[in-house]
Amino acid sequence: MTKPKPVDGALLLCLDLQPVFLRAVAGGAGVQHRCEFAVAAARGLGIPVAFTEQAPWKLGGTEAALLAMVEEPEIHSKETFSALAAGSPCRVAITEGRHIEHLILAGVETPICVFQTAVDAIQAGLAVTVLTDCVGARREADSQTCLQALARAGAHILPAETVFYSILAGSGHPFFKEFTALVKKYG
Amino acid sequence: MTKPKPVDGALLLCLDLQPVFLRAVAGGAGVQHRCEFAVAAARGLGIPVAFTEQAPWKLGGTEAALLAMVEEPEIHSKETFSALAAGSPCRVAITEGRHIEHLILAGVETPICVFQTAVDAIQAGLAVTVLTDCVGARREADSQTCLQALARAGAHILPAETVFYSILAGSGHPFFKEFTALVKKYG
Amino acid sequence: MTKPKPVDGALLLCLDLQPVFLRAVAGGAGVQHRCEFAVAAARGLGIPVAFTEQAPWKLGGTEAALLAMVEEPEIHSKETFSALAAGSPCRVAITEGRHIEHLILAGVETPICVFQTAVDAIQAGLAVTVLTDCVGARREADSQTCLQALARAGAHILPAETVFYSILAGSGHPFFKEFTALVKKYG
Amino acid sequence: MTKPKPVDGALLLCLDLQPVFLRAVAGGAGVQHRCEFAVAAARGLGIPVAFTEQAPWKLGGTEAALLAMVEEPEIHSKETFSALAAGSPCRVAITEGRHIEHLILAGVETPICVFQTAVDAIQAGLAVTVLTDCVGARREADSQTCLQALARAGAHILPAETVFYSILAGSGHPFFKEFTALVKKYG
Repeated sequence: MTKPKPVDGALLLCLDLQPVFLRAVAGGAGVQHRCEFAVAAARGLGIPVAFTEQAPWKLGGTEAALLAMVEEPEIHSKETFSALAAGSPCRVAITEGRHIEHLILAGVETPICVFQTAVDAIQAGLAVTVLTDCVGARREADSQTCLQALARAGAHILPAETVFYSILAGSGHPFFKEFTALVKKYG
Repeated sequence: MTKPKPVDGALLLCLDLQPVFLRAVAGGAGVQHRCEFAVAAARGLGIPVAFTEQAPWKLGGTEAALLAMVEEPEIHSKETFSALAAGSPCRVAITEGRHIEHLILAGVETPICVFQTAVDAIQAGLAVTVLTDCVGARREADSQTCLQALARAGAHILPAETVFYSILAGSGHPFFKEFTALVKKYG
Repeated sequence: MTKPKPVDGALLLCLDLQPVFLRAVAGGAGVQHRCEFAVAAARGLGIPVAFTEQAPWKLGGTEAALLAMVEEPEIHSKETFSALAAGSPCRVAITEGRHIEHLILAGVETPICVFQTAVDAIQAGLAVTVLTDCVGARREADSQTCLQALARAGAHILPAETVFYSILAGSGHPFFKEFTALVKKYG
Repeated sequence: MTKPKPVDGALLLCLDLQPVFLRAVAGGAGVQHRCEFAVAAARGLGIPVAFTEQAPWKLGGTEAALLAMVEEPEIHSKETFSALAAGSPCRVAITEGRHIEHLILAGVETPICVFQTAVDAIQAGLAVTVLTDCVGARREADSQTCLQALARAGAHILPAETVFYSILAGSGHPFFKEFTALVKKYG
């Protein structure tokens, strides 16, 4: 595949996909699996991908299988739960030199880092989409509660396939065939 | 029954009810069954019915049992996932020479073609109703997520019976008796 | 108990609690049980109660156990599904000579008569509350879908206890002791 | 731990955590457990905590294990279901000499005292958060219905962890380490 034209203004931000967290959340293997799908789809569609890591010097880095999907992965460490906490180095690193209009969120945990990042992004005026099948939590009921709260706050709460099929728009898209292979592989 | 007076401005649009998709979605036989109910009710109420087919030259046409319910069925092929994608031949074919105020959606898949068609219809200023028992998806959780997102976007998310009983308004409607027979047959 | 002072502007409207429908809806005995609770509570609180009956000449009258709870019950027959259909005799009969500000709805079926009555009441500018434990439907999933749609349309979707405890406001209310006995009896 | 700086304007209000109610609600032991978590977290974050008791002269006082977590606990008895009923002594006692901007609610029962207190607080212009894992009811379905109604009315409906992790903001907070110990202890 030739390198796709970037989707202007979109960023897939994968939050804290570190093994220590993936092991702790309910259905963590499934969350990782769907995040792999999202990363593969984003790359094929020309959507830039970035990873955050919570205190990696202590908790370890991002799951290797995910990083391996991206050449020269963009990784930002953080100590705040929100990747976009006002004045934080992580926020500066993610946003500088880049125009973000639409932040697409994956990762863990929905009620903590995903929630706080989404709230900060909404307050910053960004369009925010949380990929429901690419996020997770230790306490599953908390996850549903937080997604509903984010929806009321203005976030788009959508499955990954819905977002990517919407960007593809039709079977005429050059990435369509590869994408349907990804849908099968990760289904 | 004499031919009913058309319900002004309403259109029941049945999306991609092709066997290849009906076999893939969860509870596909049930979705087809409820779509048959919706088509029968729409016809009895004088609501025009149209079908779309996704790349039928490759994926096959609409389920024969559904087409057989309509004389000279109106069928539109498409390559875009949305039946109303801006500038698409399918949109032109569906909308030209017809005044649509209220688009009633049935078919598959909720998170892809139903979702994108509903979004485009809302943006075009149409009233949109998705018949919850007449839509389906491979990934059922995705379906619920998308219906909630469409509700927040302004679509009416209602069961088929609710919509048709609302149009009937009372037992004095000439189609009432036949309709209750349909309710039983497809219940 | 001495006759309570009427709660100004409130009306508990019990829709179509006819055995033919109570037998058809899912958990019909439970719906009737909770409607009995609502009728008893309304009467103790001085909220007027009215019943509608769908084509009673054909489908039979309201469940006798419910009617027996009210002296000289107010009963309105109807042919429209909505009890407040524009221009219908039932609407005239319910509303004439009475100031309604807040319509409290119980009965069956949620996706048909409850839904249409609530929509008409909202359009008439009334506050509408649907008692979630006092309504029912043949198709239970349809019921949930319709309650969510009514909530978006502006109806209050609340359990009966919540509504009546809110009217009581505290244990100092003269009906409090009797009400707690009803809560136990119908719990 | 040195005494934390108070979180300006926040108050954790624990409603009616009396054994008579905790025994009656579904999963009451779990509700108490999560309320203990909320009280411990609030205290560590410098959020004042107050308790209400419904007619304690008759129904007994707050569960001793909860009171024991707070030195000189602030307790307000009440006869109204709402802790903030207009003109009630409880409202005066809770609000006087204190600036409340954000009321955080825990306790029982969601469809009665939590619901009515939240409604009064919203009407008084306060930000209101109901901690979903720290509230309960005899009738669990009623609980969900009421939380959804409160969300539509403008309350924040969030899990306790989400609220406290948001206040912590990051691992640099002096209470972070102790808080993670609480998360484990009460998880």
